[in-house]
Amino acid sequence: MSDPRLADLSCRLPELRLLTAAGDLEHYGRDWTRRWIPAPLAIALPATVDEVQVIVRWANEHAVAIVPSGGRTGLSGGAVAANGELVLSLERMNRVLDFNAVDRTLTVQGGMILQQVQETARGHGLLYPVDFAARGSCSIGGNIATNAGGIRVIRHGNTREWVAGLKVVTGGGDLLELNRGLVKNSSGYDFRQLLIGSEGTLGIVVEATLKLTDPPLPSQVMLLALPDMDALMEVFALFRAQLSLQAFEFFTDQALQHVLAHGAQRAIDGEHPYYVVTEFDAVDEQQREAALGVFGQALERGWVSDGVIAQSEAQAAALWRLREGITESLAPRRPYKNDVSVRISAVPGFLCEMQALLANEYPGIEVIWFGHIGDGNLHINVLRPHDLDEPAFLARCEKVTRLLANTLHCHGGSISAEHGIGLVKRAYLESTRSAAEIALMRGVRKVFDPRGILNPGKLFTESS
Amino acid sequence: MSDPRLADLSCRLPELRLLTAAGDLEHYGRDWTRRWIPAPLAIALPATVDEVQVIVRWANEHAVAIVPSGGRTGLSGGAVAANGELVLSLERMNRVLDFNAVDRTLTVQGGMILQQVQETARGHGLLYPVDFAARGSCSIGGNIATNAGGIRVIRHGNTREWVAGLKVVTGGGDLLELNRGLVKNSSGYDFRQLLIGSEGTLGIVVEATLKLTDPPLPSQVMLLALPDMDALMEVFALFRAQLSLQAFEFFTDQALQHVLAHGAQRAIDGEHPYYVVTEFDAVDEQQREAALGVFGQALERGWVSDGVIAQSEAQAAALWRLREGITESLAPRRPYKNDVSVRISAVPGFLCEMQALLANEYPGIEVIWFGHIGDGNLHINVLRPHDLDEPAFLARCEKVTRLLANTLHCHGGSISAEHGIGLVKRAYLESTRSAAEIALMRGVRKVFDPRGILNPGKLFTESS
Repeated sequence: MSDPRLADLSCRLPELRLLTAAGDLEHYGRDWTRRWIPAPLAIALPATVDEVQVIVRWANEHAVAIVPSGGRTGLSGGAVAANGELVLSLERMNRVLDFNAVDRTLTVQGGMILQQVQETARGHGLLYPVDFAARGSCSIGGNIATNAGGIRVIRHGNTREWVAGLKVVTGGGDLLELNRGLVKNSSGYDFRQLLIGSEGTLGIVVEATLKLTDPPLPSQVMLLALPDMDALMEVFALFRAQLSLQAFEFFTDQALQHVLAHGAQRAIDGEHPYYVVTEFDAVDEQQREAALGVFGQALERGWVSDGVIAQSEAQAAALWRLREGITESLAPRRPYKNDVSVRISAVPGFLCEMQALLANEYPGIEVIWFGHIGDGNLHINVLRPHDLDEPAFLARCEKVTRLLANTLHCHGGSISAEHGIGLVKRAYLESTRSAAEIALMRGVRKVFDPRGILNPGKLFTESS
Repeated sequence: MSDPRLADLSCRLPELRLLTAAGDLEHYGRDWTRRWIPAPLAIALPATVDEVQVIVRWANEHAVAIVPSGGRTGLSGGAVAANGELVLSLERMNRVLDFNAVDRTLTVQGGMILQQVQETARGHGLLYPVDFAARGSCSIGGNIATNAGGIRVIRHGNTREWVAGLKVVTGGGDLLELNRGLVKNSSGYDFRQLLIGSEGTLGIVVEATLKLTDPPLPSQVMLLALPDMDALMEVFALFRAQLSLQAFEFFTDQALQHVLAHGAQRAIDGEHPYYVVTEFDAVDEQQREAALGVFGQALERGWVSDGVIAQSEAQAAALWRLREGITESLAPRRPYKNDVSVRISAVPGFLCEMQALLANEYPGIEVIWFGHIGDGNLHINVLRPHDLDEPAFLARCEKVTRLLANTLHCHGGSISAEHGIGLVKRAYLESTRSAAEIALMRGVRKVFDPRGILNPGKLFTESS
């Protein structure tokens, strides 16, 4: 350790695993965004809460910035370390600490991978219902830091709904035990809630007590082909009113083409501009017949042009792959991403303006969009044409994002539905949050992290 | 207006309704606690958000404290004005502003009475599910300020779960529009969540966008008589595992005696030490039979000694009255109240210690307890004997509360489950929240209310 600050850290924590090899700095210094060049000072891999606290205190003394790091699957640059920060990876803190059958809670360390949380819950005959495509690599701490949503929000809500307690190390180095798994606790400000979605700028999530629920009811998966955009909200309203939806996911034919090119199997013949994958309770014959009835109504009214119901688990997985495979199929193209939301009732008006905007501003550029329509959440992926260089492409996209942010503002929407603000959307935060709110955020940040060592520059710039 | 500060306020807002008559000061200066002598400066009854903002700015300039005031049904002194504060009553701001069928949201002013919110939702064929005995007089703003719970938490959660957006005037006079009804919004700190349960110390809730849900399924109400305390958690576990519970409420025979003396009808003959009122889904014959089966199992195992199922809505209401009438039946005695919670799994151990403590510390004093056992929430009501004067009684209760707070601390519990801290439990906040957390609360308070004009002295003292 030639850096005297790191030497001091090693001296305080001789057992701490510290990485400084170039490959490690690159690996741990970035997330799924690829816009910044990783340049961390070092990677710390603490194994205990004590070690995390010592690191935070050390960082305060040396004025070293810390980037809390989970699975680094983020799409907003929240876990990027490009300015000599210490990356504090929770990956070794990935154990189950407790399962309580009476409380139906699972207590885990912050670095546990989402899929392991889900599997542990299943092993106890229960469900941790937050789910999305990055499940195999994202960490629960990161999920909490962005209040991750995903494909089951329409049924189960966001990560926020499932956190019964948090252990957090603040920027000042204090260890807080927030809410401790209580169902009812009206004893002052609920900092657990404040920490959820704070993107590592207030504290580091070292442990989480998660609520579990009953395993999902038997369900069916249906793929629908839609003739036009107007049909989308009609079909959603019809299905929501008559079925008990677990998911209602939307994608375009262009998105489908990428998934098919990536190896997925076509499930509906012919060309259709839009598709929906929906999953709903199908406990008995009556519910299964109701689903067919609803499909029939939609067909009759011309809102769907074709459809298929999965007849096996394998087929259900194949239908889901058409939606869940989109992000992966686009990944090699490193798309420019927007992740926006509006109220559900504002979706039709917003979609109309958004489509016009994208068509107008991205002529000749491939734009893939899809989303959690039942939550008012759309993902827009812009693919760089081969004849446009990266900086010019980025500049163009940023210009369009500014216009999109204006449109969102008019519709009362948000520039980040579930990915967080990070570095990517920092310039647009003002389209969603007022100047007064951002000033309050800066103030609260200073209370939890007086020296601003936790994830500085993420979410908002330090001073206005 | 002889007070020059009030004269200035009237000058700024000539239309503002201001009350200064002695009867008004007394009426608006207290809540359901009766421990403090009301002594507000005046009562302001603003009709608009603008007026609220002007009042807050005026208060900042004149260093006048404001007590935000809803239905004043609070049991912790959160709405008491005993030190020359301006009471800012929201009672004129009680209108429905919007109903959105697609979003399933209801937007109301902060002063709307809970029961009106419930009835408005029902009028739209939907349910606002937070419910408790004070529904006819408490306000939605007050519910939000304490994250009110009640009798349906086991099914529907606390008020927090049902707030999709808030309009709040901060202590600094800023108007914040928080979350604006979005399902997904990961754009920085969720101040909506921070404001919920902040007891009027960060901002005044002037509007709320509430989530609504499907109307409740057809249900049945059952009253159970239990032979002993050990049976309680067994019955709860059995019923929770086999039925879909909407409520599971517990009370003692002593509590029952007060309700009967207050005019309620006995529903089960004989003497039994403990009772449960439970409500559960009963959609079809199969579910109704399942309920009878579960009751039979409990009877067979000796966990219940008798029971009755309501055969009509009137009988269901009569059974519910046995539980819901307790608080009202005790009110003339002005009981000293505790409102405590532990994790559900900690209930048996805590109950055991709590019973011993109460028996030991309150010999010859009547202690009535009941609660939301499925949420780990118990209400303890201590009745003053006629031969003990008020100050001596209070001193005794405060001493026991300190012991109870220690017991709670050992069991990871909370000194306030759903009533809030207010003035009544301020001295015990440290049993539930750490010194570091309370310091952070003070810091956050300063960010939202730099001059400390909103509800000063409630929740915590201003400086440590």
